[in-house]
Formats: sequence, C-alpha cells, structure tokens
Amino acid sequence: MSDDAKSLAPSRRQFLTGAAAAGAGAVAAGAARAATPDPLITEVQEWASGLGEGVDATPYGMPIQFESDVVRRNVEWLTADTISSINFTPIHALDGTITPQGCAFERHHSGAIELRKEDYRLMINGLVETPLVFTYEDLERFPRENRVYFCECAANSGMEWAGAQLNGAQFTHGMIHNMEYSGVSLRTLLEEAGVSPEGKWVYVEGADASSNGRSIPLEKAMDDVLVAFKANGEALRKEHGYPVRLVVPGWEGNMWVKWLRRVEVMDQPVESREETSKYTDTLANGVSRKWTWEMDAKSVVTSPSPQAPIKHGKGPLVITGLAWSGRGSITGVDVSLDGGKSWQEARLAAPGTDKALTRFYLDINWDGSEMLLQARAKDSSGYVQPTKAQLREVRGLNSIYHNNAIQTWWVKANGEAENVEVS
Amino acid sequence: MSDDAKSLAPSRRQFLTGAAAAGAGAVAAGAARAATPDPLITEVQEWASGLGEGVDATPYGMPIQFESDVVRRNVEWLTADTISSINFTPIHALDGTITPQGCAFERHHSGAIELRKEDYRLMINGLVETPLVFTYEDLERFPRENRVYFCECAANSGMEWAGAQLNGAQFTHGMIHNMEYSGVSLRTLLEEAGVSPEGKWVYVEGADASSNGRSIPLEKAMDDVLVAFKANGEALRKEHGYPVRLVVPGWEGNMWVKWLRRVEVMDQPVESREETSKYTDTLANGVSRKWTWEMDAKSVVTSPSPQAPIKHGKGPLVITGLAWSGRGSITGVDVSLDGGKSWQEARLAAPGTDKALTRFYLDINWDGSEMLLQARAKDSSGYVQPTKAQLREVRGLNSIYHNNAIQTWWVKANGEAENVEVS
Repeated sequence: MSDDAKSLAPSRRQFLTGAAAAGAGAVAAGAARAATPDPLITEVQEWASGLGEGVDATPYGMPIQFESDVVRRNVEWLTADTISSINFTPIHALDGTITPQGCAFERHHSGAIELRKEDYRLMINGLVETPLVFTYEDLERFPRENRVYFCECAANSGMEWAGAQLNGAQFTHGMIHNMEYSGVSLRTLLEEAGVSPEGKWVYVEGADASSNGRSIPLEKAMDDVLVAFKANGEALRKEHGYPVRLVVPGWEGNMWVKWLRRVEVMDQPVESREETSKYTDTLANGVSRKWTWEMDAKSVVTSPSPQAPIKHGKGPLVITGLAWSGRGSITGVDVSLDGGKSWQEARLAAPGTDKALTRFYLDINWDGSEMLLQARAKDSSGYVQPTKAQLREVRGLNSIYHNNAIQTWWVKANGEAENVEVS
Repeated sequence: MSDDAKSLAPSRRQFLTGAAAAGAGAVAAGAARAATPDPLITEVQEWASGLGEGVDATPYGMPIQFESDVVRRNVEWLTADTISSINFTPIHALDGTITPQGCAFERHHSGAIELRKEDYRLMINGLVETPLVFTYEDLERFPRENRVYFCECAANSGMEWAGAQLNGAQFTHGMIHNMEYSGVSLRTLLEEAGVSPEGKWVYVEGADASSNGRSIPLEKAMDDVLVAFKANGEALRKEHGYPVRLVVPGWEGNMWVKWLRRVEVMDQPVESREETSKYTDTLANGVSRKWTWEMDAKSVVTSPSPQAPIKHGKGPLVITGLAWSGRGSITGVDVSLDGGKSWQEARLAAPGTDKALTRFYLDINWDGSEMLLQARAKDSSGYVQPTKAQLREVRGLNSIYHNNAIQTWWVKANGEAENVEVS
C-alpha cells in the first residue's frame, strides 16, 4: 500500500511524457515501443478475408456474442421467488452514464406484466375538480419533457449494512440505472384535473397485482415528476413498466410506479404497506424513520472491482466509477487508494447534472502494490458521502434501505479485487 | 390550410384553460371530461389478475412484442446487395435524443464483421516518432472521454435531391443516430506515437474487407476525434464496429471508421475511392466538390409524419422532431404549418449541445385543416437550414450527398401525411 497516494497521480502531461521515456512494460504501448517498427507490421489487425453480415440481418440488434456476460443478474438466495425480487445492472462492465434498457436492473413486487397501449388507462381522481381517465393516446397529446435521471432502489447496497457481503459492484451497487425519459409532467395532468385546495398528497399505484401504492407529497408531484412513456428514446420495456411509468427524480425507485394506473389526490398520506412495514429505516433504538424518499449522494468505483480485476499489471491504470445524488448534482468525487487516509480529486467526464449519474475517472500509474480503493461523492447541497462507520453511528445496524456509505475494494497485487470493510 | 399559423399556437396556459373549457372530443381528456365521475370508475385500468414475469426471465431484455414495428428497415431497391447497403433508424417512432444501439442505422461497405477483443490490434504508423500497435486492453489504459454525438451518413436524405421520393421520416432522414460514446481521444494516441512535423493528415482504415479508408486533416484528428469502444454505456454492437470505431464529431458518417485497424500519419491525403468517386458532390457544371466533411445544420419533423399519422382528430397536437448541426450546437428550430409562409419558434427539450441531436416540440391546437409541415434549424455558427430550392440553386441536381434541405410533410385533414415538395 502506498503511503503517498499523490505520487501515483501524475498529471496527464506527466503520464504521457513518462510513457514516452519509459521502457517496455511500463506503459500501455510498452510492448510495441520496445519492438522495432518492422516486426510491428506483422502484428497489425488482419483485414477480414470475407464479407460480413448484411443490413437485413438484425432489424433490432442485440449485443455481440462475446459480451454475453454483460447482463442483469439476480442472486437466488436473496428472495424466496423471482416474481418478487431484484436483479442487478452490470455496472462493473459499463462506461459512460446512460444505461441501456436491456441491462437496466429490475425490481418487481409481483412480476413484470404485459399491458397493451390500447388497453391502458390512467385515472386521476380524489380531491380534484374533475376526475379524468386518460388513454395512452391522450397522454401523447400533452406537452412533453425530456430529462436524464437515475433510478435507484432504496435497497441498493442494503446487504452491506451487516458488513462486506456481495463480491462485485454489480451486486453491491447495481440496483441503479440512468436513462433519458420522455413523458408528460405529472403537474400538467393534475392541473388538467384541477387540484382542490385541500389536496396535499397524491397516492400513486400500478396495474400489477401488487399495485405497489405509494404516497407522494403534492409539492413533489407538482415539481419534477414525469408520467413517462419512453426511455432512451424508445418505448419503455415491459420490465420497466410499459407503456407508462412514473419518474420521481432523486427519490427511491419504489416510488417510480410501473404500469401506472391511478393517481389519487388526497389530504393525507395512505401509509401503505410499502411505506410503513417496508421502505422505512429502523434505527438502533427500534424507532423507524419514514418518508425517507431522497437518495443521498453516493458513489462507487466500478473498475477495478471484484468483477473487473486489473489484468495488465502495473503502470497506467484507469480507475472509474459512478456518482449520483437525489438532492442535486454531483460537484466532485474524491478517490482514495489507501482506505480513506488520503484522497485525490477525480476527473468528472462531464459537469454533474441534476439527479443523474456522473461518470468519474482517475488516471494513475499503478506501482503494483495493493490498494484499498474508495470513492467519495460530494453534491450541490454541500453533502459529503459518509463512511460506513459514520452512517452506522447515526442509523445503527437494523437498516436495509438507504445505505449510501463509502464502498471499499481491496485490490491485491495480482490485480484481483475483493469487497472489504476498513475500520 | 390556415392562413394564420399563429392562431394555432396557444400558450401552454391557454392550452390548458382551453381544454378545461372545451367540450367532449376537443381536448385530450375530452371523452373523460364529458362523462360523469361515476362511469369513469369502470374505465379505469384493471389490476393484473395474475403474477407477471420474474427477474430471471430476461438477463438481457428486448423491446416488448407490441413494439415489433420499431426496428431498422432497409429499402431493397436502393442497393444491389444488403452487404454494401444501409438501413434506417425508426426516428418516426422514437422520442428524446438518445438512439438505442439496437435500432441505430447501419451502413456497411462489405458487411458487418465479427472481431474478438483478443484479436483486435490498432496500428499508428507513418510520420510518427515511434510506430505503435495497441491491443484492446492497451486502449483501456489511456484516459477516457465521454460525449454524446450524432452520426449521420452523408447520403442521408440523398434520394430527395430528385424530388420527394421516400414516404417516411425513417427513410428520408433515418441514416442518423445519437449516442453517448466512451473512448480515448485520438490525440492521446497520436501524441503517444509522436507526430512528426511534416505530418498534416491521417489516413484511417477499418478491418472489414472494404477497409473504407478516409483521409482526415491532422487538425481535426488532434481536436475532438475519439477512438471509441462503448456507446450508450455498453460495448459497441457488432454492426457499429465492435470492438473499436472512430468517432469524428460533426463529420460525415463514412469517416467514422468501424473495426478501426490503422491510423497512418501522412503529409498529404490519400484521395481514396471513398473520397473521390464517392462522397464528393458533383455540381451542375460537372465539377465535383471534395472534402465536404461537415454535416450542415438540418432538422426533420418526426411526428406527425407519413409513418406517424395523426389518429386523434383535431385539438391538442404535439409536433416534434430532431435538429442537429456538425458545425456546433442547435440554437433554435422554427416550425411552419403552411409550407414556409409563416414560422413559429419550437421549444427545445434541452439547450443544444455541440454536434449532438436536439429534440424540439411545438404544441398546437390543430383545427383539423391540412398542413404543409416543415422544420428549420439554426446553429451556433449563425447558419440557417436552407430550402430545397436554395440548395439546388447552389448545388444543382447531380448530388447524392449532403442534402440538408428543409423537409415538407403534407398532413391531410384525415391526419395522414405524405412526403411532398413545395415550390
């Protein structure tokens, strides 16, 4: 473990200069550099000796066969049945910020149902001037918005309260996805129905057998909530609520009701199963916190990580990961190589945007010694992501949800990585 | 046809107020409003009567069966063989700006080849201090960038030079996609090899049988060109150049070499087949323009359009489309309902970003009369998208490539739309 993390962090110019001056093996192109130009010619990519596939082969394309391991995965022992369960986004293998729908995590309470657009109806009722029922085609006639937002399950990293358990970023932090949504502002539909002065909450429910009803304060419902029908440009997938889901930016995924069926304006919350016995946080003294809707700032190094070990040995290494906050935008991410003793500022691939994933990179020259790799997110509210110890001090050990603590990967000298806790 | 387009453009507030005041059929929720609350209850979306699919059902998900028409399509008579051909993105059915890889258009010169990461090599040679060959793993060790860019084939809308021909936005404007790319700056790799002072161009070629070689000025190569390995977060699809393609922001798609094999630094351009007999523009006097790399500002209304007719009759109508420019960002889009006689400013879903698609909306209250629907893009360079007549005056009728003229859809009173020309 390096005592002086900063020595591992050359500027980009130093990185390149260092590379040019270094011998074989020390840089990415080291092997090539050590050779003379002539032998290189034999190494060049061969041209294809035949024709490839025509443009009629795949009207809708799938990933190439060599990427068949980059898929959602569920953990069988986590739940009694796959119908009321979760699977995880392969974040360890992705880059950038957009999550393709095909590998974006699922969480169902009674399975993914199949619902035709023609059969779809959305009711707005309760404390409104005029109860309304919209068809899918009706919804398409209202002014639309487009925004990229992350959706994180409240239980993401939940197993880690009790200590390092699941070995891989996909499993510890993969109950998250980030897509560009197109839809109608819920405010527009509520205004169309006319909210009565005594309306203070909305109760939203889905058409699946669980209904998954949740109460949302009217203030949020009238703010940035979307009734969405597209994600990343195309129709929602069946497993994400086709044809219509709710998008509740920055708030726990459970409230993003899929197959959205009804929005009832009420003068008080329902206190449903999903917001009392579930999705509340029991503290050390046995008292439970409720209405813990916002997802606090969080980050994770996605590579290197247990499923994405370092295979190339020492020298230039790209450390990368994701950061997000339900309370605003990411303003910075720090990375530690020594379990939080020292920190370096990572490079954000783009300025953070509100309630969306931010990609960060730290380019280092790895000396081959083991690391305790951590990331720490900071958001526009001034919040700094806490350590596990800090979080446990406030919340105890009874929680399942809302674990946004700093994650540690022990990267060994051989490049393999393991989920560990540091004290 | 309305003589006064402005009368069709209420403010949002007017739109909503108008809706509340109007009778059945006149607004999106008209049918519901006309009914009393009680019968509405019977209209509400039924809850599912059984359980849905579990989280182990689709490790990598596909679109739901009801969306099976939202796919890439090729036009058989356009080319002699599908191996050297094109297909088109279903832009008429998409919203937002991100194009999912699965339905992003393809253009191959000798078919889509299958290349393993382990077998992949990228050579940088020619006028460099040290010729280099990179493996895929080498590339992953250099600092990465993330950016959203559009890729448009130079031949997009090419059939329209001769007059309105293909009946649908997918076919007239669908040789475009827009993705978030992750990769290494080409500049980084060129600096690693060390460009000689006499180096003024790079020649880039792919590993497919066509090689599709193109010359790029060194200035562009050192600016924003990416050696990309991910799109929308995941590995490039086979048909988009897995494992590595070039991203040449704002420039014609043909230069975005797939299965990138070699980058040679040269003192002059190669003048290859793909930049002389192809991808040049023959003017009226028989002289051909070459080096027409940049894709000028362009836009198209994607809905309503021939493949996306209005089915709901008069009243609130969302007009939407895409705009882009290879010379910068979109600063505004105007929409005409009367074939260019009068224009209204559309709403951009988000501020335009450099060399990426911008989504625009115009929310109108359609009176049910026919429209000649057009969009006109303006970019940060001050450029305004021309009419077909203006473009033909300068370029004649011999061109195939770089048709960025204003497109017209004739929307009939029954809501159906047709590709037409206006004089």
